[in-house]
Amino acid sequence: MPAVNLNYGTLKENYLFAEIAKRVNAYAALHPEQHLLRLGIGDVTQPLTPSVIAALHEAVDLQSSADTFHGYMSELGYAPLRSAVAAYYRRRSVTLKDSEVFVSSGASDELGDILNLFDRSLDVILLEPAYPAYADANVMDGRTIHYLAASDANGFTPLPPQESMQALIYICSPNNPTGAVFTRELLKQWVDYANQTGSVILFDAAYEAFITRDDIPRSIYEIEGAKTCAIEISSLSKTAGFTGTRCGYTVIPEDLERDGMNLNAMWVRNRTTRTNGVSFILQHGALAVFSEQGQKEVQELLSVYRANAKRFMKALDEAGLNYFGGENAPYIWMKCPHGRSGWETFDLLLEQAQIVGTPGEGFGKCGAGYFRFSMFADPDDIEEAGRRISTVLK
Amino acid sequence: MPAVNLNYGTLKENYLFAEIAKRVNAYAALHPEQHLLRLGIGDVTQPLTPSVIAALHEAVDLQSSADTFHGYMSELGYAPLRSAVAAYYRRRSVTLKDSEVFVSSGASDELGDILNLFDRSLDVILLEPAYPAYADANVMDGRTIHYLAASDANGFTPLPPQESMQALIYICSPNNPTGAVFTRELLKQWVDYANQTGSVILFDAAYEAFITRDDIPRSIYEIEGAKTCAIEISSLSKTAGFTGTRCGYTVIPEDLERDGMNLNAMWVRNRTTRTNGVSFILQHGALAVFSEQGQKEVQELLSVYRANAKRFMKALDEAGLNYFGGENAPYIWMKCPHGRSGWETFDLLLEQAQIVGTPGEGFGKCGAGYFRFSMFADPDDIEEAGRRISTVLK
Repeated sequence: MPAVNLNYGTLKENYLFAEIAKRVNAYAALHPEQHLLRLGIGDVTQPLTPSVIAALHEAVDLQSSADTFHGYMSELGYAPLRSAVAAYYRRRSVTLKDSEVFVSSGASDELGDILNLFDRSLDVILLEPAYPAYADANVMDGRTIHYLAASDANGFTPLPPQESMQALIYICSPNNPTGAVFTRELLKQWVDYANQTGSVILFDAAYEAFITRDDIPRSIYEIEGAKTCAIEISSLSKTAGFTGTRCGYTVIPEDLERDGMNLNAMWVRNRTTRTNGVSFILQHGALAVFSEQGQKEVQELLSVYRANAKRFMKALDEAGLNYFGGENAPYIWMKCPHGRSGWETFDLLLEQAQIVGTPGEGFGKCGAGYFRFSMFADPDDIEEAGRRISTVLK
Repeated sequence: MPAVNLNYGTLKENYLFAEIAKRVNAYAALHPEQHLLRLGIGDVTQPLTPSVIAALHEAVDLQSSADTFHGYMSELGYAPLRSAVAAYYRRRSVTLKDSEVFVSSGASDELGDILNLFDRSLDVILLEPAYPAYADANVMDGRTIHYLAASDANGFTPLPPQESMQALIYICSPNNPTGAVFTRELLKQWVDYANQTGSVILFDAAYEAFITRDDIPRSIYEIEGAKTCAIEISSLSKTAGFTGTRCGYTVIPEDLERDGMNLNAMWVRNRTTRTNGVSFILQHGALAVFSEQGQKEVQELLSVYRANAKRFMKALDEAGLNYFGGENAPYIWMKCPHGRSGWETFDLLLEQAQIVGTPGEGFGKCGAGYFRFSMFADPDDIEEAGRRISTVLK
């Protein structure tokens, strides 16, 4: 019998962002004088907001004295933060108990950790194109993955499969990489499918703050029936610039049960066994995001990226290029012109316009021939990229 | 087939620290006027040191401006911190490449996450008494656990089993809960056993900083042959007061291979898939621990807990009580007098002396009749507990 997890041997090599980094570094080494316009990895460029900075400093000061020092935190999350997140949901008419909210180190960590709750024989339904880690984390666990292709025919928001299948279903809306948003009606069909088949939806809500339209759900729990079939994983990375600071939250409703087991209780057991909680400093900083002033600042922060999207969409429109996303979403998903592949477009944009983006192939087969632009980029870079793109891709 | 991981249903209920909290809270509710002397959970009481506080503030300031802002960190760890940890090992003659050091959110998180590298059919050898999460995390994965009982007959540092078995072997030295330290000779026997059987040792070095004797290894890699059989998991929680701040590190040597797979490469793949790294702020703070001034401050911090241990051992000696640990370790493991169980001793100490400790039963069957005191407590509490203990337990 093997000692190690041999599933690792079946993972595909050449992780998307590593390959991009390799090509970008090679180009930069040859052209050190060129400023690269980075619209590739979805990393934010704007700093933390003043309220968060003040709260982080305050937390550090508290850690400097024995009287105010925080040792081990609750493994489930700092009570005031769990409560603030529940209140944040209430503003959009989703009622959660504080005990249904868990604080995490961010969506990426949580998307891996949460898999421990599921049997390894459970099938996975993956709507592609998708964030590559969804698949890889399940390959590591040996699960069978069924890819459901999104395409321009379904606006990159596919319907549930015809076949009834009990599965772990990944839905990301606003979507990474396509920027597509799932409507209420469509999410209702997915929730019904999950409840009928005993499936569990992992709803990745990392980009929810980009939704401005009232009729588009920002949480899966805005859909009736979701509390018996869905886990929602969210993060402050994109909402409040926490990509390098790290803090997120996960909702597991107390009504979510499978095989006679309660998933909220299972997660409590998982966390109390497998973590000592998230840093007090980070949780105290995160709490400031949910204050009235913090929310105002977040909107200002988001407006930078929204303006980026508006500006870049205008440039694409003027160049006659075809794309999805960009509205209620921080990603723009361009159809590569002239039948080029994503990687061909990548090389062309890098070499002739110094624009770094992400080839659609990196997000699964059906991403071939598409290209992702991240609107988290520096506004000046966005403007310059907008100017250059038409000449290169026309 | 089940949707959820049914192994959770086989976990034992009543987690040790939850039961303690229940009894303590019940007592406190009845006796609100009493100050409790908390020598229970191994949580630190001294604040972060000045260098760390300064570095944390500096890091927060860097996050406040777009020019100095850190977004996504390397999933493997901040390069200067990996390098500082490798240098820390070199001071005790252990040579590691930076690429063999990974930054973590702490030992507790890492001890769970690392299990993803191993097949679920791999047996586990657990030296008991032990930190309860070792067993629980493996029960969640469905692994078979072989308990190897430590006892006063072997100084709570047992030899490898007679039987040859390929396993995942947990060794914690200085030990939680017994305070026992493994000698070089004994660790050599374990390393040889692991290499001969194809086993992997998970060496929990969270308490290494408490070792002052030169002839006691602080790292498993001080033992010849360890690089082909051991992973070392360490933390700044107890070294530098990071229990509520969170940062640790893990060493996976590049020579560690099983079943033709390289465990360092597997962990790189795991981390790049399943995390977005540890907060820049925390890693920048952690880096200060390894500076010359930081190390000086850490020694002052540790001297508080070392003085606690000295004082408390004196009190136990004067009371004629029998115990292990306390030297080169932050825990004292007392044999309960008059044949009492750990829980009986717990209730007695709580009710008659307001001392909170941890019953040995919480760490496994062979902990029955023993009692753990944590020296991370407040020095005044330690002194008062020392005064009261003889009258209650004599």
